[in-house]
Amino acid sequence: MDLDFLSSLVVPNESKVVLVVMDGVGGLAGPSGHTSLESARTPNLDALALAGICGFHDPVGTGITPGSGPAHIGLFGYDPIKRLIGRGVLDTAGTPFEFASGDLASRLNFATLAADGTISDRRAGRISDEEGLRVVQKLAARIKEIDGVEVLLQHVKEYRAAAIFRGAKLSGKLCDSDPQQVGKKPLSVVPIEDGEEARRAAELANEFIEQAQKVLADEPRANFLMMRGFDVYDPLPDFCKLYDWRAAAVATYPMYKGVARLAGMKVIEAGQQSMEDELALVEKIWDEHDFIFLHIKKTDSMGEDGNFAGKVEVIEHFDSLVPRLVALKPDVLCLTGDHSTPCALKSHSWHPVPLCIVAANARRDACESFGETAFLTGGLGRVNSTDVLPLLLAHAGRLRKYGA
Amino acid sequence: MDLDFLSSLVVPNESKVVLVVMDGVGGLAGPSGHTSLESARTPNLDALALAGICGFHDPVGTGITPGSGPAHIGLFGYDPIKRLIGRGVLDTAGTPFEFASGDLASRLNFATLAADGTISDRRAGRISDEEGLRVVQKLAARIKEIDGVEVLLQHVKEYRAAAIFRGAKLSGKLCDSDPQQVGKKPLSVVPIEDGEEARRAAELANEFIEQAQKVLADEPRANFLMMRGFDVYDPLPDFCKLYDWRAAAVATYPMYKGVARLAGMKVIEAGQQSMEDELALVEKIWDEHDFIFLHIKKTDSMGEDGNFAGKVEVIEHFDSLVPRLVALKPDVLCLTGDHSTPCALKSHSWHPVPLCIVAANARRDACESFGETAFLTGGLGRVNSTDVLPLLLAHAGRLRKYGA
Repeated sequence: MDLDFLSSLVVPNESKVVLVVMDGVGGLAGPSGHTSLESARTPNLDALALAGICGFHDPVGTGITPGSGPAHIGLFGYDPIKRLIGRGVLDTAGTPFEFASGDLASRLNFATLAADGTISDRRAGRISDEEGLRVVQKLAARIKEIDGVEVLLQHVKEYRAAAIFRGAKLSGKLCDSDPQQVGKKPLSVVPIEDGEEARRAAELANEFIEQAQKVLADEPRANFLMMRGFDVYDPLPDFCKLYDWRAAAVATYPMYKGVARLAGMKVIEAGQQSMEDELALVEKIWDEHDFIFLHIKKTDSMGEDGNFAGKVEVIEHFDSLVPRLVALKPDVLCLTGDHSTPCALKSHSWHPVPLCIVAANARRDACESFGETAFLTGGLGRVNSTDVLPLLLAHAGRLRKYGA
Repeated sequence: MDLDFLSSLVVPNESKVVLVVMDGVGGLAGPSGHTSLESARTPNLDALALAGICGFHDPVGTGITPGSGPAHIGLFGYDPIKRLIGRGVLDTAGTPFEFASGDLASRLNFATLAADGTISDRRAGRISDEEGLRVVQKLAARIKEIDGVEVLLQHVKEYRAAAIFRGAKLSGKLCDSDPQQVGKKPLSVVPIEDGEEARRAAELANEFIEQAQKVLADEPRANFLMMRGFDVYDPLPDFCKLYDWRAAAVATYPMYKGVARLAGMKVIEAGQQSMEDELALVEKIWDEHDFIFLHIKKTDSMGEDGNFAGKVEVIEHFDSLVPRLVALKPDVLCLTGDHSTPCALKSHSWHPVPLCIVAANARRDACESFGETAFLTGGLGRVNSTDVLPLLLAHAGRLRKYGA
């Protein structure tokens, strides 16, 4: 949906909206013939399925398996195909770094370069957060500017960091320098489109790598770095301004904080915490916010590991916390995933994602349990992920009538 | 879905995909309250419905009744509204004729002109293939070029042929010369858009008709011809290149071979053969192809005839051959139609078309029988025909994850 159109219909009110994303929650039937969601004992989620309206969303398009970035971008109402965000920008956005429009961001992976010029460790021995931060600071003290362009450095986690080039018109259409295999020489950064902006960006990146190599020469492990996922920061239309509400995100992983921050939500710093801690944060910020995005990571992790029993357990654990969400009396409570991560595939997949919206004004359907098979008869049918936000606004009474 | 986007996600693998199109298979309930599909005894199709995921596709758009061209174009993943292909091009593509980009093609119908200048038989007494071919050759020997534009002639079937103008920038926006009724005079070909390209094309067509009339003057039956369905050949993006697979089509009618050929599939010449012969061809070409489109014509013919029992019989006949397809162990087996042809309407219709996808990684639903009513609760819901190909690619593991 056109966001200007949607935004033009917004009327603020006192309602509270909660969007719970159980990452990768959708699945395929296991040996029992039931999915993880169906195998889990979920009395509280089932009660919400009964109370609300159920169905599915397609994250990007029919048959398309999304990464976490596009999957969340769609749930937040933005076109995930037009708004593809590169890893350099996504990862950096998960840190406190303040982007400016036009910044060119790249992931940095610290690595170990052998004497023969080949990469001997693509993760520099998985150096600690402390060591990673130290080498980032060392680089930042020595490389501040290249050819008139400001160079900003940001530590992300362990051996991962980001470089941001600011102050010139640059393109992110560049190849990674990571050869993806140990025993190979690092690659030069090469433009993958014509034009001065990509040519200059590649030059800057290659010069940065050369200078960084000199700065890091005496490091025992992180004596080199590789650049990946170049992208130019192009701000998304602000989620809070578009819908005239105070929106916050509660998430434990940088990636999900990053995508919420790119949308303009206030990210509540939770660190690597438990679901209980996340719930406590939601309770804490409740009064000051109208929209809260709560991200539950472990459903996806278990799916990626192919751990069916583990995924069931995470779902049951979350179910046990659902009464705390219900007790807050949100006007609209939406429970869904960003994509499916079937244990059978050990990866993200294209399968439509269960979606349940609970609100006093939701048209009820006959769904009595929270799961893929039950939701097939749900009243929402199958919508695109970008339809979810308009539905939340509508059920919250935050959209006026269109036209006379 | 944007084809460049879809194509950018393709990763080739060893999987085999079969798309079975039972032409016009969708229907309406007969006196028994069941459709032809539901009335037919189809244990093999029912087993596939149970094993796979079911639903419907809309061939062009909600409420739109498609011709066979657009219906197949959509199933092959192209936008059937943007990519309307005129009958002149479609029919010619069903022959071995080799198009060049920019060719202007028109169907030719041989006809009988009475002494008073009116059409006395619009099909020239339904002359045989042999006679049709003979008059085409006679014309081709005498008319090779008009006003510097090359004229190519191709026999299609019986009284039907095609004329192709090559070597000038021409438009296909022209009226037919067929008055559609006997006892009327043939029409002049008139441009239906402004501009030199349409004006010149109309002049060429009228001059061709005049010259052809002289060449055919001594023919007892085919002493005249009419031109219909003008269109300029504009190649579709190549199906094999877009999806990086070896695609083949097995079909008995020229129209379906034509549309597959226009998409870039290899057309396996089957002639006017039985379903058994078609199955044998699929088996024969199995090892050398990754995608096979199998077209079953007679479901539609029976629908067009309003022959409910006949349609049931064709479906049961096809069902009896399904085990041969299953025995090939395709990774993805899709069973659908191009459109509905309800016996009650004796014509194509707008009703959504049953769709079943069988694959190990399909999310199962509760459908246990192959038919319109059962599929209403299917897991695919209702998709657009252009979503079918992305779904086949996804289930075949041929699409990489989109975005980080």
